[in-house]
Amino acid sequence: MYSYQRLFDFAKQVFVSMGHTEKMADTAATVLVSADMRGVDSHGIARLKGYVRLWEVKRINSKPIFQIEHETPSTAVLNADESLGLISGPEAMKIAMIKAKSVGTGWVSVKNSNHYGIAGYHAMMALDQDMIGISMTNASPLVAPTFSKERLLGTNPISVAIPAGKQPPFVADMATTTAANGKLEILQRKNEDAPLGWVQDQEGEPTTNANGVKEGGALLPLGGDREHASHKGYILGSIVDIFSAVLSGANYGPWVPPFVSFIDPVSDPVGEGLGHFFGAMRIDAFRKADEFKDHMDTWIERFRSSTPIDENNPVQIPGDYERNMEATRSKDGIPLLDPVVQDLNELADKFKLKF
Amino acid sequence: MYSYQRLFDFAKQVFVSMGHTEKMADTAATVLVSADMRGVDSHGIARLKGYVRLWEVKRINSKPIFQIEHETPSTAVLNADESLGLISGPEAMKIAMIKAKSVGTGWVSVKNSNHYGIAGYHAMMALDQDMIGISMTNASPLVAPTFSKERLLGTNPISVAIPAGKQPPFVADMATTTAANGKLEILQRKNEDAPLGWVQDQEGEPTTNANGVKEGGALLPLGGDREHASHKGYILGSIVDIFSAVLSGANYGPWVPPFVSFIDPVSDPVGEGLGHFFGAMRIDAFRKADEFKDHMDTWIERFRSSTPIDENNPVQIPGDYERNMEATRSKDGIPLLDPVVQDLNELADKFKLKF
Repeated sequence: MYSYQRLFDFAKQVFVSMGHTEKMADTAATVLVSADMRGVDSHGIARLKGYVRLWEVKRINSKPIFQIEHETPSTAVLNADESLGLISGPEAMKIAMIKAKSVGTGWVSVKNSNHYGIAGYHAMMALDQDMIGISMTNASPLVAPTFSKERLLGTNPISVAIPAGKQPPFVADMATTTAANGKLEILQRKNEDAPLGWVQDQEGEPTTNANGVKEGGALLPLGGDREHASHKGYILGSIVDIFSAVLSGANYGPWVPPFVSFIDPVSDPVGEGLGHFFGAMRIDAFRKADEFKDHMDTWIERFRSSTPIDENNPVQIPGDYERNMEATRSKDGIPLLDPVVQDLNELADKFKLKF
Repeated sequence: MYSYQRLFDFAKQVFVSMGHTEKMADTAATVLVSADMRGVDSHGIARLKGYVRLWEVKRINSKPIFQIEHETPSTAVLNADESLGLISGPEAMKIAMIKAKSVGTGWVSVKNSNHYGIAGYHAMMALDQDMIGISMTNASPLVAPTFSKERLLGTNPISVAIPAGKQPPFVADMATTTAANGKLEILQRKNEDAPLGWVQDQEGEPTTNANGVKEGGALLPLGGDREHASHKGYILGSIVDIFSAVLSGANYGPWVPPFVSFIDPVSDPVGEGLGHFFGAMRIDAFRKADEFKDHMDTWIERFRSSTPIDENNPVQIPGDYERNMEATRSKDGIPLLDPVVQDLNELADKFKLKF
């Protein structure tokens, strides 16, 4: 078990070693390790080595100069200057919140960025300002639209964070696929099959092969098949792609750069880097914040107390799982898989750090 | 087959007979019959009799005075004064668009409203202003959250309309359930079973009974079961509920008033009427509209030309289906089921109109 502080300190030192300022490294490490704390292991410190590799092949710029390329009182497009999304994300979210303070809502589309960690971190930044936070990003193409053999979309997650009163906030953070890639990796390690509806093979046929995506197949959009409305998952992933990249001028669809250094970006990009989209809505731009939060409490309490199908499985509120993980891991520490520990030791050697 | 004009004229006369002004009746009929034209028969003129019945029991106000209860440069809450959503929806969308003209985006949450027809109509209002339109509404509780025996959410649709250049626009309009109620009604008429993943019975068990919802069961959120991420459909329906009703002060969750006159609203409402949420984002608040539309064309052309699994089933763009229906029905007219024709004849008798 590893403590939050230990992982945070190490990640921060690695980001500094890559050439980031102290402040940027702090932000990146905060976003990164928040994923480990919330139980989203696929988006936490396990990714650190991948970021370093992308930096080594000059696909991540550790000295970014952020620039607002266009703006109105409620909108902006931010050029992230090839930075890590772990850093440009919070920057863009802050701009959205400043605009929301001034005119009620703020909306920022980001181009020329890279992987931004968990979508939920950015959306949750809005909560203590009594704002609703929204965050989404496009991602490397792994998902086939309904009826398509080709992968044209990423897992394109959406996060929405909504403040409550006495109750903890409503925090949704979901990939727009049936299953995120991290869930397949768990099955691959256990040598188990995936349920039908998660993956199709390279011919576009449904498969239970947990390695189906690696073998040329694709992840399936939320819904899984046409009969279960996979076109709706395809719609959601498409909206994320368009808001994040067509609005900002980033790459979209099959042109989104891969997250791994051993696959080259396409030679005919349609934009710059990958894209994110952030929103902040001030609650009191609609009604008094206290009133709203009282009603959110009522909403949450009513849903939580719904008659369950199975008494041992009560109805959950979005964010419950991650909140429980965070409580456990604050106390017991964060477990890391052996290959991840090995990666971190290699990084320590490379940068002459102590892990 | 019935022509658009014939259905429009009749619907308008009925709305006038209910006491609406000429102008309001025109708006309501336009929104209503647009559903028939786009092939969403469940939300078209088949609903007219239901609206009249709700008006008869004084649950629809045909002389509404709309009032903005609170606003900022980019937001507003509209009190719809118990009007039909067919009328308050376009009103709210216009406010969102005026705000978008002024500060880049506009966001309007509506309370004290009723059924608003197809979500897509309202979102599409933004298109010819070079804006992205967003529309969502909560609805009578028919959907059980993941793990719940109780119905706490409506089919809570989301529509997003995005302009393109040479290509027709991207128009998504989707219920946040696996299947909309209209699809079950078709199976009921044919006496056919539903696929697993659409409906649960009153014990919360998966069922193929197409009458399962009527018999005390529930529609299932997009995903269908936990293994296929029904919690994500539950999340989406919840976000629609909260944006539409907790932000505005309408009823939410199980408190949303039923759409039918023979079921009384709950005696302990938490708000006023039902709620909608609308957004308008000016494209050129982010980047030049021409640039954006060129890239939307590229996006659409790339997705449409994706290698299909089955050559006879090419990849579709959201909005294709409805656009094709509209083309066919403009030419051939709109088919109506016998019970619908009978309803319309009864309405003609009641109001001394000619159908």
